[in-house]
Amino acid sequence: MNSRLKSIYSTLEAKRLDGLLVSLPANISYLTEAQTRDSYLLVSKKQNIYFTDSRYTEEANKFLNNNAMLKECNGSVFARIAESILSLKLKNAGIEERYLPLAEFNKIKEYSKGKFNLIPTHSIVEDKRMIKDATEIAKLRKAAQITASALEYIKRFLAPGIKEIEVAAELERFMRYQGASGASFDIIVASGPNSSQPHHLSGERRLRNNEPVLIDFGADYQGYKSDLTRVLFLGKINVLVRKVYDIVLKAQETAIKKIAPGAEMAEIDRVARSYIAKKGYAKHFTHNLGHGYGLEVHEDPRISGNEASAVRPGMTFTVEPGVYLPGKFGIRIEDMVLVTVKGCEVLSGAINK
Amino acid sequence: MNSRLKSIYSTLEAKRLDGLLVSLPANISYLTEAQTRDSYLLVSKKQNIYFTDSRYTEEANKFLNNNAMLKECNGSVFARIAESILSLKLKNAGIEERYLPLAEFNKIKEYSKGKFNLIPTHSIVEDKRMIKDATEIAKLRKAAQITASALEYIKRFLAPGIKEIEVAAELERFMRYQGASGASFDIIVASGPNSSQPHHLSGERRLRNNEPVLIDFGADYQGYKSDLTRVLFLGKINVLVRKVYDIVLKAQETAIKKIAPGAEMAEIDRVARSYIAKKGYAKHFTHNLGHGYGLEVHEDPRISGNEASAVRPGMTFTVEPGVYLPGKFGIRIEDMVLVTVKGCEVLSGAINK
Repeated sequence: MNSRLKSIYSTLEAKRLDGLLVSLPANISYLTEAQTRDSYLLVSKKQNIYFTDSRYTEEANKFLNNNAMLKECNGSVFARIAESILSLKLKNAGIEERYLPLAEFNKIKEYSKGKFNLIPTHSIVEDKRMIKDATEIAKLRKAAQITASALEYIKRFLAPGIKEIEVAAELERFMRYQGASGASFDIIVASGPNSSQPHHLSGERRLRNNEPVLIDFGADYQGYKSDLTRVLFLGKINVLVRKVYDIVLKAQETAIKKIAPGAEMAEIDRVARSYIAKKGYAKHFTHNLGHGYGLEVHEDPRISGNEASAVRPGMTFTVEPGVYLPGKFGIRIEDMVLVTVKGCEVLSGAINK
Repeated sequence: MNSRLKSIYSTLEAKRLDGLLVSLPANISYLTEAQTRDSYLLVSKKQNIYFTDSRYTEEANKFLNNNAMLKECNGSVFARIAESILSLKLKNAGIEERYLPLAEFNKIKEYSKGKFNLIPTHSIVEDKRMIKDATEIAKLRKAAQITASALEYIKRFLAPGIKEIEVAAELERFMRYQGASGASFDIIVASGPNSSQPHHLSGERRLRNNEPVLIDFGADYQGYKSDLTRVLFLGKINVLVRKVYDIVLKAQETAIKKIAPGAEMAEIDRVARSYIAKKGYAKHFTHNLGHGYGLEVHEDPRISGNEASAVRPGMTFTVEPGVYLPGKFGIRIEDMVLVTVKGCEVLSGAINK
């Protein structure tokens, strides 16, 4: 039994739960230390059970070891889950309310025949995932390195006339040759005015001279995700673009300097936001400063003005201020930070800005 | 207002619902005829409302036209949804029970203050999506063509020593140059014994001579997904592999011949399954014969032994029998079918088997 599962047992005990049905794929991957798919995991001190279908039996047999028993379900997985809860005599079984669809909740409840309670819970596994261990940090470091190399590679490839989607194609291909299973999310290549949409869909537009190209992408390395944004330029940089770029960069640097154990998340967001506000672009910085990354590319913590909690060593999150001028252009600069005992390390620090 | 939204109004009326909160991304894309993300859509005869956050305002303004009003939500989208249901005075609002997480359901319910009912529904939009219109078929045809070209391209690239993940890299790169936004799902390249896992994760294993290579992949073309599987061979084909290949191919051909309006889905599954059973491999064909494809790569209908309903013109689904010999190899052959008035067309028919 691995230590991650054991740590869940203690939390369940504290919450007076006899078990937890884990349904978020990233949570299941975390607890089994494997790249899982299409599965449910019932965690309980009496027995852990992994439910999947016949397509995955062979791989599950390889990775489950003594962490969980495999139950192959072809047909209703919810009936099997309820049967297992009943046969283990769990009275109060937690479910992940943020991920379990209403219909699945109701089905399991129906099969329970009133013999156990389903208790809505949230963040039990996510809270553990927020603090990365050495194995996870090594994988995230590698994911960041692959991303950095891909960015260097693509700089030599960019030229007027090339389509956004072709840039995305070359980035993902390169990352796979470097050991990534793929991109960690749909690669954003936003040229010229497209860059003013924070989440532009890379398309058929061709790069032009004297325009910014915003590239937001990451690698998936053994399930761990990186996330990085840079704005590159072809030809001459317009004065306004340069001005906004410098504001965003300074806002990011100021925020990164604030990061150390004990610093409030809201305060880290605030220093970047107030610098941008001072320069007159407050209403153009329309999203949070950053988000956790790990088994998911967006995970806890959220670095936003509403988060009163403090950062802790082992947390990994992005710092990505942005200024978007609709119809004109947008600038976002995003790096990957790891909170250390004394301050922070920028995992994507090898990349020029 | 487009005709897709109008057709939902009639269904809601028949079900005595005043509105429907659509949360499945593919359903929202279908109803807005756009590539949507991170959004909710409230459909009601009084007004349709599209909820998203500031990252997508600019693109949503472009595609919504007169189909829905845009409501930008930064903060709790669920409070905004409840407010809208209240201000439109909807008494009975449907929700998609298969997709709405329990916590979201409960939040909206809480904000309702007992002034409206949330009614669990399923398949309202999915039922419409099952029958493709001309625009959709054109996009699926293009997605199939891109996939076919990519397969021809990759045949010349395969050689002993190349990694599975490198094959995936080249396939996806090629498809993007042909107009796809990317692969329609994680590309499966399963070499040698890896092919016995129906959903193998493409990895670092290198192709070898005298082994099968199973490739299962598709293109995403303007939101529409293709899905195709072929087994290719390097060097000499082993007698058993050839024998199993011929069985799977014959099973597929027999099933495809059955497809015409009125044919039962269970029967289409049965003809393939019983052929494989007759040849002694019943227990090695471990999944359904096929699944619908469209805005999702797996959608309704399911072509399985439990589906008593009949196929109808305009339905699109895969036909993909497979035989898996754990630890040895697996063979799956998958094509994309479109049900026509008289029989069916194989959209991926240009590709050799």
